[in-house]
Amino acid sequence: MHQSSLQLWINVSLFDGLESATEPMAIAVKEGRIAWLKPVSELSVDDKSGFECIDVKGALMTPGLIDCHTHLVFGGNRAGEFEARLEGASYEEIARAGGGIISTVRATRAASEDELFESAKPRLQALIADGVTTVEIKSGYGLDVENELKMLRVARRLGRELPVRVVTTLLGAHALPPEYKDDADGYISLVCSQMIPAAVAERLADAVDVFCENIAFSVEQCERVYAAAKAHGLAIKGHTEQLSNLGGSAAAARAGALSVDHIEYLDEDGVKALAEADTVATLLPGAFFILRETKMPPIELLRRYQVPMALATDANPGTSPIFSLKLMLNMACTLFRLTPIEALRGVTAHGAQALGLQTEVGRIAPGLQADFCLWDTTNPAELAYSVGLPRLTHRVVAGKMSGGAA
Amino acid sequence: MHQSSLQLWINVSLFDGLESATEPMAIAVKEGRIAWLKPVSELSVDDKSGFECIDVKGALMTPGLIDCHTHLVFGGNRAGEFEARLEGASYEEIARAGGGIISTVRATRAASEDELFESAKPRLQALIADGVTTVEIKSGYGLDVENELKMLRVARRLGRELPVRVVTTLLGAHALPPEYKDDADGYISLVCSQMIPAAVAERLADAVDVFCENIAFSVEQCERVYAAAKAHGLAIKGHTEQLSNLGGSAAAARAGALSVDHIEYLDEDGVKALAEADTVATLLPGAFFILRETKMPPIELLRRYQVPMALATDANPGTSPIFSLKLMLNMACTLFRLTPIEALRGVTAHGAQALGLQTEVGRIAPGLQADFCLWDTTNPAELAYSVGLPRLTHRVVAGKMSGGAA
Ligand SMILES: [Zn+2]
Ligand SMILES: [Zn+2]
Repeated sequence: MHQSSLQLWINVSLFDGLESATEPMAIAVKEGRIAWLKPVSELSVDDKSGFECIDVKGALMTPGLIDCHTHLVFGGNRAGEFEARLEGASYEEIARAGGGIISTVRATRAASEDELFESAKPRLQALIADGVTTVEIKSGYGLDVENELKMLRVARRLGRELPVRVVTTLLGAHALPPEYKDDADGYISLVCSQMIPAAVAERLADAVDVFCENIAFSVEQCERVYAAAKAHGLAIKGHTEQLSNLGGSAAAARAGALSVDHIEYLDEDGVKALAEADTVATLLPGAFFILRETKMPPIELLRRYQVPMALATDANPGTSPIFSLKLMLNMACTLFRLTPIEALRGVTAHGAQALGLQTEVGRIAPGLQADFCLWDTTNPAELAYSVGLPRLTHRVVAGKMSGGAA
Repeated sequence: MHQSSLQLWINVSLFDGLESATEPMAIAVKEGRIAWLKPVSELSVDDKSGFECIDVKGALMTPGLIDCHTHLVFGGNRAGEFEARLEGASYEEIARAGGGIISTVRATRAASEDELFESAKPRLQALIADGVTTVEIKSGYGLDVENELKMLRVARRLGRELPVRVVTTLLGAHALPPEYKDDADGYISLVCSQMIPAAVAERLADAVDVFCENIAFSVEQCERVYAAAKAHGLAIKGHTEQLSNLGGSAAAARAGALSVDHIEYLDEDGVKALAEADTVATLLPGAFFILRETKMPPIELLRRYQVPMALATDANPGTSPIFSLKLMLNMACTLFRLTPIEALRGVTAHGAQALGLQTEVGRIAPGLQADFCLWDTTNPAELAYSVGLPRLTHRVVAGKMSGGAA
């Protein structure tokens, strides 16, 4: 355990969140932040003075991983529904048996804050064991003021009690609750005029998100939510172009969204809109895999217009019950043909940008938080190539060891 | 830690390797084997006498997981090749740069036994952390007598030094080594007349495997290997019908193979041949996923003819660098549409049968080894539904705790 407030990590194979260093590096940590870094070959005796020196012998260091899109807090469990579908039940039969998202809403509403905390904890611990140091957690299974706020309170408590930075997002506009059947506009009014102000009053939300889709909310309804969020000083994000092309990503970008997420159906105009607004495109290969989608996100266009691509688990009980961000690296490469370095940027520098935190986390750079992972390999590509390996040996949050096998 | 030689595990939610119990169970362990099991409701005071009683409060118990098809021992690493391909290199360019299986052969030949042991160890530890208690390990990257035997010695040593049962398989007929270019028959003669006898002399192999495919060996060549293996009293297995339908599975079944593995291109005649010979069909969704295959194994036919389906990682550096058997449960359901229970049988009872070990492991049944896992859930379907969860809380091999988080 390295707990000194002045640490010098030497002989590091570094992936800094954007690029790999070409020679062994030394990284100085001072009071929980990166103080400076330089090649070991340029290190002087003076440089080392006062530091606890930790020789990692060539091990790979990456920024602490950032999972910028999760739904970790929820009641109940959809394993039975997963099984029923594989045993041949139709979507209709499952809906009639009380399955689908509404079953999660029911279970989430019925659960106490403590119950939601206890069930979310092992999910977050699984991400932590994978190297995650910053995680975004959305509400969206309460669908009324009281229960959305309850979910956000649980998310905040997870951040207080576990060694991980938690960013919260109010996703009131996730689905239409039964109480507002046939009145989506009325529900959006509730989100804008009551839910957002209440979350702001308790400082429970860092951002506001929407699900813009034929089966959820229209572009116009989402724009109302964005306007209310911005009026309250909150950042915005969108679930957009997952199942069809509604122009929701471009609308989100025009409104100044930090990120648009899923985006399998995004077209060139949409990509241009992201590039103009500096909005991050967040890829969610877990949901793509579980839903057996075939429509690929427009990776070549995103590259051509230099839109930063983030990568996240979308951990949720319905379409991505996957609590491993490292697996997303392989899935992004295998399914979406990202390069390993693009995938790694997606869970570090670009994941941070998707949360508006690029000046705090996601890179190994002077002034940023000393959040990083050390891995039992020298080659960053191996993080995307292997599943289940390489081993995480050290996990450091703000300069403090917390997790890892060493 | 429960190390008493008489243990009574009570209030168990049991999946016994084939079926789920419908009420809380008690499992008695005596000197490393399952002595008896019965519903807790039928437990008498006498039943408990002399036992250390362990109340698991409803936790799910499964047999220890069995990974019946791996290539865990190899030299080198193909992360660079994985990266080059995603950066746009063609297969030809990679081959010219020394990539592909032959790069693994070169690195494996160059490695010492100690080096191979040290590099394989974390791979096996990753499987152990996932709940694996029995693992098959193949040779096949030596491709000459000395180096194939070296690989098998490393596999045996892994079984001695780590808390897991290791079954070894000689896969000399994996690929044609450069020394035998254009002389596949000559190489098969080497396998039959020298490699197999040498492995038998040192008791290094429990079975013999082949790769029956256009890019590897013909059905006739594989049949020569089977004959030699059987003459030496070894079990046989085959990599068959992965990329085309050559009739290799039926040939293996006729020769009495324990299992045929991959089998995406298997047809109804092939399935009938498996049913007649009681040969297990081993599904390898990891390679299917990594290779982005689209041809599904004939699951409906296998069900109709009641062919047992095993499930394994195929952990290897080229086509399945995946060191998680639990992930295979989800992949088998998501990609191949197995039910969760079929997937679980594949890594327990049917995995054992694929190794000829069904009277020793793979079930929670009287007389069998007390190899089992306890999981932080009550529902077996959740093992296939979730990735990264539920947590493995206890892992027991021959009645001895070795691993798990509790
Ligand atoms: Zn989502
Ligand atoms: Zn194989």
